[in-house]
Amino acid sequence: MRGLELRSLATRDGQLRLSLEDATPGEPGPDELVVRVEATPINPSDLGLLIGPADLATARAEGTPERPVVVADIPTQRLGAIRDRLDQSLAVGNEGAGTVVAAGDHVRQFLGRKVGMLGGGMYAELRRLPARDCILLPEGADVADGASMFVNPLTSLGFTETMKAEGHSAIVHTAAASNLGQMLNRICIGDGIGLVNIVRSQAQAELLHAIGARHVVDSTSPGFQAELTQAIRETGATIAFDAIGGGTLAGQILQAMEAAADRGAGYSPYGSNAPKQVYIYGSLDTGPTVLHRTFGFTWNVGGWLLTPFLQKAGPAVAARMRQRVADELTTTFASRYTRTISLRDALQLDTLRDYERKATGEKYLIDPSR
Amino acid sequence: MRGLELRSLATRDGQLRLSLEDATPGEPGPDELVVRVEATPINPSDLGLLIGPADLATARAEGTPERPVVVADIPTQRLGAIRDRLDQSLAVGNEGAGTVVAAGDHVRQFLGRKVGMLGGGMYAELRRLPARDCILLPEGADVADGASMFVNPLTSLGFTETMKAEGHSAIVHTAAASNLGQMLNRICIGDGIGLVNIVRSQAQAELLHAIGARHVVDSTSPGFQAELTQAIRETGATIAFDAIGGGTLAGQILQAMEAAADRGAGYSPYGSNAPKQVYIYGSLDTGPTVLHRTFGFTWNVGGWLLTPFLQKAGPAVAARMRQRVADELTTTFASRYTRTISLRDALQLDTLRDYERKATGEKYLIDPSR
Repeated sequence: MRGLELRSLATRDGQLRLSLEDATPGEPGPDELVVRVEATPINPSDLGLLIGPADLATARAEGTPERPVVVADIPTQRLGAIRDRLDQSLAVGNEGAGTVVAAGDHVRQFLGRKVGMLGGGMYAELRRLPARDCILLPEGADVADGASMFVNPLTSLGFTETMKAEGHSAIVHTAAASNLGQMLNRICIGDGIGLVNIVRSQAQAELLHAIGARHVVDSTSPGFQAELTQAIRETGATIAFDAIGGGTLAGQILQAMEAAADRGAGYSPYGSNAPKQVYIYGSLDTGPTVLHRTFGFTWNVGGWLLTPFLQKAGPAVAARMRQRVADELTTTFASRYTRTISLRDALQLDTLRDYERKATGEKYLIDPSR
Repeated sequence: MRGLELRSLATRDGQLRLSLEDATPGEPGPDELVVRVEATPINPSDLGLLIGPADLATARAEGTPERPVVVADIPTQRLGAIRDRLDQSLAVGNEGAGTVVAAGDHVRQFLGRKVGMLGGGMYAELRRLPARDCILLPEGADVADGASMFVNPLTSLGFTETMKAEGHSAIVHTAAASNLGQMLNRICIGDGIGLVNIVRSQAQAELLHAIGARHVVDSTSPGFQAELTQAIRETGATIAFDAIGGGTLAGQILQAMEAAADRGAGYSPYGSNAPKQVYIYGSLDTGPTVLHRTFGFTWNVGGWLLTPFLQKAGPAVAARMRQRVADELTTTFASRYTRTISLRDALQLDTLRDYERKATGEKYLIDPSR
């Protein structure tokens, strides 16, 4: 068996090269499957590996219609941040779904079935991987439903699990109208967890209100800081998950939490003792995080990633989370895609620039079998 | 009994007013002492309450030679940060030492003895407080030795306790030539803990080398980032305590830790899984903390304060720390003062501006009995 595979190569001399290469998945081992990939999403987390710090304004098309190639420049000062990947051709695509076309001796029961997969290299016609990294799609779910059953569902569930494990009782979420944000709303509404949604436009606010969100704050509103403080006061949120990373928003959330906190008796120049936690889990803004420290000394800002979280939570929690995703795949954890494209489409300049913009509400799905 | 007491008042209309007021400590309760304060340091942590966000360039002298008063403007935009203290006259001074001049029935044994004290309001001729907030000075120690036996000693010991409790094995410290930083060097040398000292001049580096510091990095050196990375690699430091707060230094430390970390096999756009913690415990630079997030997603920046740390550590740890301070008061935990002043001196404009500069190596002691 052979198939095409999308590859991303960043070179030492500052070039990004995206291409389609022939790949042979090889025979499955006893516990392995070979899957024909039929649906794989373009998540913000995939773009880091796919495009990295390249400047798409410099992107140009090379290759042939059958084998398109995109080349773009990487500014020299950004090469240091990716030195570990330079001159290596990398497969891309965190998760996907498709049909099992070959199965090892121990996992024959998967043959011909549709599965969701996690493990990288999904932007490919064929993918060989351990059966334990696959989940059988439930009755009535198709590959588009199963394509995104790991990253966003486990991340949004991971937020509520982290909230509980660290002793908080309500959440602030930014870029909250995203697919992930909508999922988080469905989880929190279902589980009775207070959620403050921060969005960047009135249209996004309306989208969230339409699916039942109760607390939505628009960061472009002139009264944003006061409105955020009020929503935090009403929900008691002391933990935030921030997809944006750059700019002043993380600090503004901490300031609102401090303003909403009970400061106890008497004045302290050190602020309240109320816990205040912001986790940055994305980098929609890759600029610096700027914290105006107007929130005392009891605060914390850190990175949050799904894989280390799952490792820390342990296999029992991870299994419970995966089971819930499978049970509620077409309801709580439903994803919507605005466009489905082929592997070749993914390397057309216009299309590439379009999905790289990460516009809220737009979501691309690649079908490598097209 | 009556005595003078230094008071700080910030008013709603944007004025800071420092004055000396008559105060009556009152009779001690059964478990209380009245102490004649003879030595009380001006720590950076005292300046927050004393001067707050006032602009000392606008400071002017009022009052009389006997009762000097200093008045300064507080910029309007900074009033929000201190709204909880507005229009309240506050006593100042976290810690001190002196002679017990009155004692309650249960604590008569303290009468006439010299004690170190923690509890605020130490910039006063007389201070009434519970005996449990006092420690008898050991043989051979005078009030200058005992004046600073809480904040800096417990803070620097708190750093090594936090390091151990959170699973780290070496420390990075900034503004490392301070009194606190010198103490931390003596602790770490004595206990065999790796310590990376970040200083801001060659003179400070020499001062630390002279007391036996092994890793000293000058942030004004052109090779600072590489030198810091090398020192972190040699010590294995994954936790930092930062007295500065503002600017890019916290992020530079995280970047150096990430560069020194073992990134394991293969490239991840999310960076290494190695823990990287910076605690901000001071605000020598009150400007924003600016984090250029070039250190993956496994990192943490937070505030650190002595009192919440001691509460979390529990009474057994706190008692062990206090005992060590008493045992090593004139060695490990010795403080040096460059100038001793009276309460009236503290309200002279030149003197005030001088100690407000927080120059490293300069340390003021107030003797209210002068």
